[in-house]
Amino acid sequence: MEKKESTTIDVAETSKEMKGKAPLSGATVEHARGGYKRGLAIFDLILRISAFTSALAATVAMGTTEQTLPFFTQFFQFQASYDDLPTFSFFVIAMAIVTSYLILSAPFSIVCIARPLAVGPRLLLIIFDTVMVTLTTSAAGSSAAIIYLAHNGNSAANWLAICQQFDDFCQRISGAVVAASITVVLLIFMVVLSAVALRKH
Amino acid sequence: MEKKESTTIDVAETSKEMKGKAPLSGATVEHARGGYKRGLAIFDLILRISAFTSALAATVAMGTTEQTLPFFTQFFQFQASYDDLPTFSFFVIAMAIVTSYLILSAPFSIVCIARPLAVGPRLLLIIFDTVMVTLTTSAAGSSAAIIYLAHNGNSAANWLAICQQFDDFCQRISGAVVAASITVVLLIFMVVLSAVALRKH
Repeated sequence: MEKKESTTIDVAETSKEMKGKAPLSGATVEHARGGYKRGLAIFDLILRISAFTSALAATVAMGTTEQTLPFFTQFFQFQASYDDLPTFSFFVIAMAIVTSYLILSAPFSIVCIARPLAVGPRLLLIIFDTVMVTLTTSAAGSSAAIIYLAHNGNSAANWLAICQQFDDFCQRISGAVVAASITVVLLIFMVVLSAVALRKH
Repeated sequence: MEKKESTTIDVAETSKEMKGKAPLSGATVEHARGGYKRGLAIFDLILRISAFTSALAATVAMGTTEQTLPFFTQFFQFQASYDDLPTFSFFVIAMAIVTSYLILSAPFSIVCIARPLAVGPRLLLIIFDTVMVTLTTSAAGSSAAIIYLAHNGNSAANWLAICQQFDDFCQRISGAVVAASITVVLLIFMVVLSAVALRKH
């Protein structure tokens, strides 16, 4: 009878030890994985702030562009503004949306730093980031096409280049498109980063 | 002595049962998760084939567009072709690249169906899909900007609309841009689908 009891106690101890060990090693792995994912989330926040800066720069540069030529005829003064061309108006609206999104999504990125293993915020970010990649690329691409036309003109369609006269105007809108392209590259990095953070090990 | 032996056997049996149960339930979960991810992978392949079709349609529609007007002067005949405008040449090149990528990436999508829990192929697909979203959007966006100009002209820059004369030409290139836009939407769905499949449960 005494022997049986001692056996039972032995068994109980062993099972306790086993139970104790399993969650412990699991926690260590979780912790290491959390640290790695937290690093990715911090990098995501830095990229997001950089993208916000370049998107804001693109919006402001395009939105404030205006040039009035120093000579004028009897009937009108030569003036170029971004809203003379609908494509540039679209650029300003699209980049304003992207800028707002980037600042509004920063809290979600901070949630990813605080809870590195949460899946919801990351999935939300990757979906909206992809949509914003499309919006920014379409704004940059369409404006680049018009700027190319303004620089070079097109003989087949009989469209003349206007950048000889409006050189300052053309330089500023080209700068805005470059800033938008930088935003596109940063957004792509953010999508890839989120994809890497989402994958299971 | 007899009692002790029986106890030992009992314990041995219990631990065997415990060992037997744990991998079994784990395998069931793995199996269910695999089935769910296989469904996503099959849907990804269907989307990929649809995107390939629309990208091919866009490339061919733009690449074969040409219109010769039925009247001509003493010096030249009026003719419009897609390569009169550099933006449309870029469109054809970009969409040809996207079409090739979509057909070359199909085997990776099939690997995802065969091995639903593999992470490598999915991560590769999501990264390249994002890059292709950018390429397709820039092609569609820049061409749309030029087509808008061809339809409406621009009084500020003194660019005249050419679609009154080249109506057939304008209709075909507009169709190509619509096909490219459909490709963009399908590619975005593919990125979101890969992100959902990558997340851990």
